[in-house]
This record gives sequence, C-alpha cells and structure tokens, in this order.
Amino acid sequence: MAMATANKLALLMALLAASSYGALSSPELRGLWTRAERAVEAAAELFVEEDLGAPVIHALRPLVGSADPDPLPLGVPWDSWRLAVETGNIIDWKTVPAHCEQAIVKYLLGDQYRQDSKVVADEAVAYTEGFKLRGNDAEKEKLVWLFDIDETVLSTVPYYAKHGFGTKPLNFTSLKEYVLQGISPALPETLRLYSALRSSGIKIVFLSTRKEQLRNITEANLRLRGFSGWFKLLLKPDDCEGTAIVYKSGERKKLQDAGYVIVGSIGDQWSDLIGQAEGKRIFKLPNPIYYTP
Amino acid sequence: MAMATANKLALLMALLAASSYGALSSPELRGLWTRAERAVEAAAELFVEEDLGAPVIHALRPLVGSADPDPLPLGVPWDSWRLAVETGNIIDWKTVPAHCEQAIVKYLLGDQYRQDSKVVADEAVAYTEGFKLRGNDAEKEKLVWLFDIDETVLSTVPYYAKHGFGTKPLNFTSLKEYVLQGISPALPETLRLYSALRSSGIKIVFLSTRKEQLRNITEANLRLRGFSGWFKLLLKPDDCEGTAIVYKSGERKKLQDAGYVIVGSIGDQWSDLIGQAEGKRIFKLPNPIYYTP
Repeated sequence: MAMATANKLALLMALLAASSYGALSSPELRGLWTRAERAVEAAAELFVEEDLGAPVIHALRPLVGSADPDPLPLGVPWDSWRLAVETGNIIDWKTVPAHCEQAIVKYLLGDQYRQDSKVVADEAVAYTEGFKLRGNDAEKEKLVWLFDIDETVLSTVPYYAKHGFGTKPLNFTSLKEYVLQGISPALPETLRLYSALRSSGIKIVFLSTRKEQLRNITEANLRLRGFSGWFKLLLKPDDCEGTAIVYKSGERKKLQDAGYVIVGSIGDQWSDLIGQAEGKRIFKLPNPIYYTP
Repeated sequence: MAMATANKLALLMALLAASSYGALSSPELRGLWTRAERAVEAAAELFVEEDLGAPVIHALRPLVGSADPDPLPLGVPWDSWRLAVETGNIIDWKTVPAHCEQAIVKYLLGDQYRQDSKVVADEAVAYTEGFKLRGNDAEKEKLVWLFDIDETVLSTVPYYAKHGFGTKPLNFTSLKEYVLQGISPALPETLRLYSALRSSGIKIVFLSTRKEQLRNITEANLRLRGFSGWFKLLLKPDDCEGTAIVYKSGERKKLQDAGYVIVGSIGDQWSDLIGQAEGKRIFKLPNPIYYTP
C-alpha cells in the first residue's frame, strides 16, 4: 500500500473516531469530513486496483470501526430513513438524503452492513437446511432458488464509494464502465448461502436486470468471485425497457409455468422479490444506496 | 406523582444514562438493570392509572433520552435482528431474544420508536395528499383506507412494559385483561395520519384480529384516544381461529368485491398488509415486540 494512502486511511480512522464522539458535529468542521470522504474513495479505489481477489468492502472494515451514526441535525434521521427504505415505506427515491452521507459511509464501510447481511444469510441458510426435499427424483429436479446479482452476490459499493455513496444522481454510463471491468467483489454472506445451496441439490438461478450484452463479463465476474455451478443466468434482453418488478415477475412466472418450484429468492430490492410467482420464501438484503422500481 | 415513584424514575434515568456509556455492560451489574426494568414497569403503570388521557409511552419519552442501544455481546446484534424482523426476513419468532431486552427498552421508551413511526406517517400523509380523487361522486364514495388497531393506532406497550418487553412468552389472558381496561394509549403519529384522512374524503376501515366480544371496549378505547368518524370496524368472529394473514386477506377481498378501492393500508405486521387484495399502497409501522402470523 502506498504511504500516501496509508496516511489518508489514518486520517480517516481519526476522523471517524472523532465524529463518533460528536467532535465533528459543528458546521465549521464539515470540510474535514469531505477530506475523510476523499480518503475513503481513494482507499476503495486502491483495494480494487491492487487486490482483485479480496472483498473490497470487507477488507476496509477493520480500519473504520463500527461506530453508530451520529444523530443527524437536519431532515429525517438516518436510522428512521433507512428503516423506512428497507421496509418499502419510502419508495421511488432518487438519491440518499445529503445529510445522511456521513451515516451511510459509516454504515457501508463499518460493521453494520455486513452484520445486517449476515443475519439475512443465516436465516436463509437455516431455512434451506430445514427444507425437506420431498417427492421423487423428478420433483426434486425442479426445485430452484433465485439470486439477484448486484448488491446481492456482487457489490458495486466500490463504484458508489467514488460517486457520493448514493447521494448524487446515478450516472449510468460510468456505472456501466465499472461493471464492465468485471471486478465487483463478492458479498461474502450471500456467497455462504450460495455454497450451502450448491450442496443441497436445489438448483441456482440468477435473475438480474443486467442486460444480455453484459453476459460474458457477468459470468467472468461471478466465477472470479467464487460463484460457479449455476443452472441458469437470466439477463434482461437488450431491447427490454420494463421495470425490474415487471421483468422479474414475468421470468419467475415462466419458471413456474415450466414446472419449477421456487423454494427461495434473495435480493436487495423489493422489486427483486415481489409481484408474481414469488416462491415459498423471500429474503431481503439491505441496500440503502439506491432504489430500483 | 408519588415520591417513591419519582425516585424510581430518577434511578431509571441514571441507569439508562450509565448504560448508554457502557458502564452497565459487566455481568455483575445486571441486577441494576433488573431494578431499572421494575422502575419502568412501575412508571408505565403509574402513568396509565393516574392520567388516562395522556399517551403513556410518549409521556415517558423525555425522561429516558434517546441513547443508541449498546453493542450486544451475545447472539445476533439488536440492530440487525430488528431490521431482519421489520423486513420480514426473520419470521415466526416467539419472543425477543433475551440479550436484546436492554436495547428494546431503550428503543420503545426512547426517541427511536416514535421517530421511526413518524417517518412512516409522514410518507403516508404525503401519499394521501398527493392521491387524486378522480372519478365521479359514486366512485369517490368507494375509496377506503385500512387501519390495523394494536400497535397501529393503539399501543399495548404499557402492558408489555410490565411483562418483559416481549422477551417472555405472551400470556393471552393477562393481555386480554389489559385490553379490556380500554385505556390503551393512541400512537400519536398514526393519529395524525388518521386526522389527515378524515378530511380527505377517503373512508376509514379498521381491520383487526381483536374478537367481536371486544367490540364495545374497542370502540370506547378508540373514541377515548381521539379516533372517531370511522366507516367500518371489522373484528374477527369469536369462533374464527384462522391466522391474521388469512382472515385479513379475506376481509379485504370482500371489500374489493363490494366495489371498494383500497387506497392505502397501514399496520405493524406484514400479516396486516400482504396476502390478497393488498390495495394501492401499504405502510409498515415498526413492531419489534411480537410477531403475528
């Protein structure tokens, strides 16, 4: 790691420690936070560029601690905003409220995002282990589990870390450039669920709104991060402009009509999970960075 | 207020302040927390008995502050457990994990529960105000909004405050005794939504799994707490043993079949909201105390 970046990380750690004790709450110290944010971006970039194999977010984790977000002086409190987003009470939002930026950085780079994901994966693994594979072999052959891709098995947080952590309007072009690098890290808790399913005999189907034109790089990225042996990788036709909820409901319906039984389904958006043919159980991973209708 | 109770409240405040700084994390100090809990129970009882008009939970609110829950040493962290419960990832749970008791007390009696509820109510009010009353008068007459009752418009937290805040198995008999007092306080954020709807022309329907035998006391309790002018109060037949999700789906379906349009629906359980005839938009209030299938 370059010395300059190590210094930036030290600054970042000090600022996060200070802010968790309220020392950064006065407006004149906001500039310091901006410097800290730049350090996070530099760090995220560095980890991606230097070590393609390591999970970027979680490699950063021990460096920034797990301090609770500060109380936010303006607008909706971060905690309540996040809960309302995760429960689908706040919908159709375009960006994370600007005053939540400090809190979302801590959330994503601290312990909490990983812990929240771990509890979801633990529940899904327990459900999978308890799920009895009834019926004859032909029936067992028809059991499938659906995975969304972005923010479910692969993370685009390294991209968002360099673009305001969701507080700025999304630039699809630059996000696509990131995705095309094929280096999105694995979300390790979902990888654990994936591995449990691989040994259960339930078939794995990826269902993503990534377009067909991204098939090769998506397959390569999944394999790079330890995902293999899937049954189907369903991507959106290049000319399809429907919403995620409509597209994914339709694909689930097709699976069901072809005789498949959807044992479980996991995603970071409600639009990954609800609509038609929802299957026997759904698992909603956290995602406070962006909203997909 | 009796002096002895004032002293208990002072002890409680001191203990909560101490625990929020980590002073109570060592096991040998657990006994102190038990004393604090008894003080909370005494306080809840007192407020209910002395002032029927005041909302119990929120009268207590300023006394206990809004400190974030401490990190929990054992089991699933409180924050992640609560998020998983509120998003429906953890289902069919019987009691709040014992190690979350301190956190749930702070959650319910501190600022967070009210803040979380406020954000949901704000979204629902904004949606209501933006909802265009289209069509002719006959069509407008058919617009309805569904409210659940317990933990949606009325609170049973004063009961749970005296019975372990959800960490102990529910005693239906003693809960029913509490409900039969007819003094459950209003949840003020939902009352605000109720008032906004009353002036919108959208009809209000209560849909609760309280049994018919509780109709009189339920009506009296609602009126005592400022709810009036509802269109229907749908209670579960005394001999009906179906789950909430089945019963409520059936009642919504009947409303829909009778030509009503469900503009919105609000409840604290997913079983209040999903299933059949969900309506145009659903709002999930927080409830980490108990789970209703």
